[in-house]
Amino acid sequence: MKPVKLGLLGVGTVGASTAMVLKNNAAEIARRAGRSIEIIQASRRSLEAGLPEGCDNIELVADPFTVVNNKDVDIVIELIGGYDPALELVMQAIANGKHVVTANKALIALHGNEIFAAAQARGVNVVFEAAVAGGIPIIKAIREGLSANLIESVAGIINGTGNFILTEMRDKGRDFDDVLREAQELGYAEADPTFDVEGIDAAHKLCILSSIAFGIPLNFAAVYTEGISKISTEDVVYAGQLGYRIKHLGIARRTDKGIEMRVHPTLIPQKRLIANVDGVMNAVLVQADKLGPSLYYGAGAGADPTASAVVADIIDVARTITTDAQNRVPHLAFQPDQIVDIPILPSSEIYTAYYLRMRVEDRPGVMAEITRIMGDKDISIEAILQKEPEAGVTRATIIMLTQKIREQQMMEAIEAITRLKSIHGEVHRIRVETLDGD
Amino acid sequence: MKPVKLGLLGVGTVGASTAMVLKNNAAEIARRAGRSIEIIQASRRSLEAGLPEGCDNIELVADPFTVVNNKDVDIVIELIGGYDPALELVMQAIANGKHVVTANKALIALHGNEIFAAAQARGVNVVFEAAVAGGIPIIKAIREGLSANLIESVAGIINGTGNFILTEMRDKGRDFDDVLREAQELGYAEADPTFDVEGIDAAHKLCILSSIAFGIPLNFAAVYTEGISKISTEDVVYAGQLGYRIKHLGIARRTDKGIEMRVHPTLIPQKRLIANVDGVMNAVLVQADKLGPSLYYGAGAGADPTASAVVADIIDVARTITTDAQNRVPHLAFQPDQIVDIPILPSSEIYTAYYLRMRVEDRPGVMAEITRIMGDKDISIEAILQKEPEAGVTRATIIMLTQKIREQQMMEAIEAITRLKSIHGEVHRIRVETLDGD
Repeated sequence: MKPVKLGLLGVGTVGASTAMVLKNNAAEIARRAGRSIEIIQASRRSLEAGLPEGCDNIELVADPFTVVNNKDVDIVIELIGGYDPALELVMQAIANGKHVVTANKALIALHGNEIFAAAQARGVNVVFEAAVAGGIPIIKAIREGLSANLIESVAGIINGTGNFILTEMRDKGRDFDDVLREAQELGYAEADPTFDVEGIDAAHKLCILSSIAFGIPLNFAAVYTEGISKISTEDVVYAGQLGYRIKHLGIARRTDKGIEMRVHPTLIPQKRLIANVDGVMNAVLVQADKLGPSLYYGAGAGADPTASAVVADIIDVARTITTDAQNRVPHLAFQPDQIVDIPILPSSEIYTAYYLRMRVEDRPGVMAEITRIMGDKDISIEAILQKEPEAGVTRATIIMLTQKIREQQMMEAIEAITRLKSIHGEVHRIRVETLDGD
Repeated sequence: MKPVKLGLLGVGTVGASTAMVLKNNAAEIARRAGRSIEIIQASRRSLEAGLPEGCDNIELVADPFTVVNNKDVDIVIELIGGYDPALELVMQAIANGKHVVTANKALIALHGNEIFAAAQARGVNVVFEAAVAGGIPIIKAIREGLSANLIESVAGIINGTGNFILTEMRDKGRDFDDVLREAQELGYAEADPTFDVEGIDAAHKLCILSSIAFGIPLNFAAVYTEGISKISTEDVVYAGQLGYRIKHLGIARRTDKGIEMRVHPTLIPQKRLIANVDGVMNAVLVQADKLGPSLYYGAGAGADPTASAVVADIIDVARTITTDAQNRVPHLAFQPDQIVDIPILPSSEIYTAYYLRMRVEDRPGVMAEITRIMGDKDISIEAILQKEPEAGVTRATIIMLTQKIREQQMMEAIEAITRLKSIHGEVHRIRVETLDGD
């Protein structure tokens, strides 16, 4: 069969790794794909940085538009990241009738609707397995493997940096800032860690997962996003005493009233499989009406795992080059005319259970005041831990687990509790998900 | 797009469930597949048993060959099981130019090579996601999701009945026969449980996984198979005390000397994710050179989960009806002319660690005799537990964990130990896998 010719945009860590995977596993890949697949041209801002070792047969250029406009390129591999010039490059590649493989979660989450419409009109494929959960084939699993099901929910640990930090906090009792610094030194976290620790990276991925799970347009702005920077070692310890672990989850759920899309720290019962996914690893738990729960676990980041997903996409696309476009797997799992804009629930309308932690005056009657407010708001308390003050301190710590309640009611209760004279400082709250299906 | 017309062979539990999934999720399935997919004819040995509720639009016939020879049928769904007449039906369907979806692991494991050769020659697709690990899309994950990788090993809990029995033995201290009886009452185990508890079902599945992981012909006869019927509650308890759980694993591994394919009870460190897969659930851990470890977890049996996989296969095939055959995903993941018959290692050549349990005279010198034999065979001992005899009994129990050793050497050591006068009864041995990658 005719060799497939690739144009690579970006020779950073993932770009270099993709070139190396294609080179080192060329024989095994050709055994599966039935043809050779080769990068013929690559662009890199600084030409002096050169190409990975042994890849000298690739023509290196400085201008990525040269690659996108190269007549001989069948598939453009976009590994530049960000929006500018990635968006323009991808749109130009599509306009030129080229298929696109990208690992760019931000680009897909924010501009995917526009990109897929253009690709559909031009009859080309734009695929993005590497954009979510690194090398785990989660896009393929949901889009194709579970295609017989009505998907009910998706809950994932989809940011390795955040999971590394939370795991270290639990295992070693270290505090957030300390672990973050180490993660930066290890290269797990960026110098500006906002995208990872504030949940923006996870929100990009969740937005994509929601689309392919439910057949809705990409709607990044509607994802409720809360990071892990306010989680204290204290919370991690108390959660453990209650039989829970704290994980930074992306959750998308279909409800009667609309779709929930949210990224936030979450207590999960420690007996759940996903509660035991540690370090930089990722995992996604999918609830589907016929299959029930299924879980997909693996490396969610790193050059080689990401390249694994990029190259799998390349092989898929190579196979569909001769397929009429309407018989291909649709970009967002559902046929373009079947993407339905189901309302997204505001976070105030979400039902979850809660973990609360507060500092109180250590005197009789305080608990009664708190539980009265909870009762007024119809909030049932599932468990209470009271940590007696140490010698010389007059404040105790109360930890509560509640049953499921509408978020609006919990916010009102927290506001009322915070106003009590006997409460000192903030009432810390973390949502709790039992993930019964796992 | 033109509706896709299916012919269903077998309206048992999975067949009925497949019809119901296609009916109940018709809208969601059409949203993804871009066409309607309908069963037009089904065969059932006893016509009186009829069709599932609401499926009266399906024509029911007694002779399955009527379905296979029906000119209007695009895809034949084989859910009869067994070899006879399943093999003849599948071959006839292929000869008639029809695509085939099957859940029949025994058929694929034993006759797959012949079936795929015929399908290749005729330009039709034969797919079998439901044959391994029920609804978990593990065939798709390995065949397409990990296609950039050299697969190093696959280790799976791929028989739900066996896992249910081992889980109950551990959680409730019940013995094997007792739990097996309950599993039969619950419908998890057949009246003749041999296929499940002696590992034959798992061996069928492992044989299929090995082929798609390594690109080797299906070779069921070469799978080393050992069941769980000899596992005692005692072993489960001692394994726990040593930090391990006993799981019935199917393991396929690429080594320098050949491929290992084996199904047997295995001690796994309890901190591994796969050691915590309990009850009837399945999970498969894949080690790939670029992705590293990844794990796929879900329902490995049951009517709806199996139907989920069958219907996903139907949608995949529906999409490829218009594709030229050479651009389809190959049946066994690798191009037919790239299937290479790598030697399969005999079990005596396999390297694993071991758990040993034996009853000994409670007198000085016994341990020295045992450890001398181990030393002579170059076997390093990692841990020893000695359980002192209860009052009135003169025999103690010794439990040992060894380091990795060639199986032949361990068998010779066990034979020599068994011959010692101070040893009473059998030396029980269970292999140990650390699954470091998980």
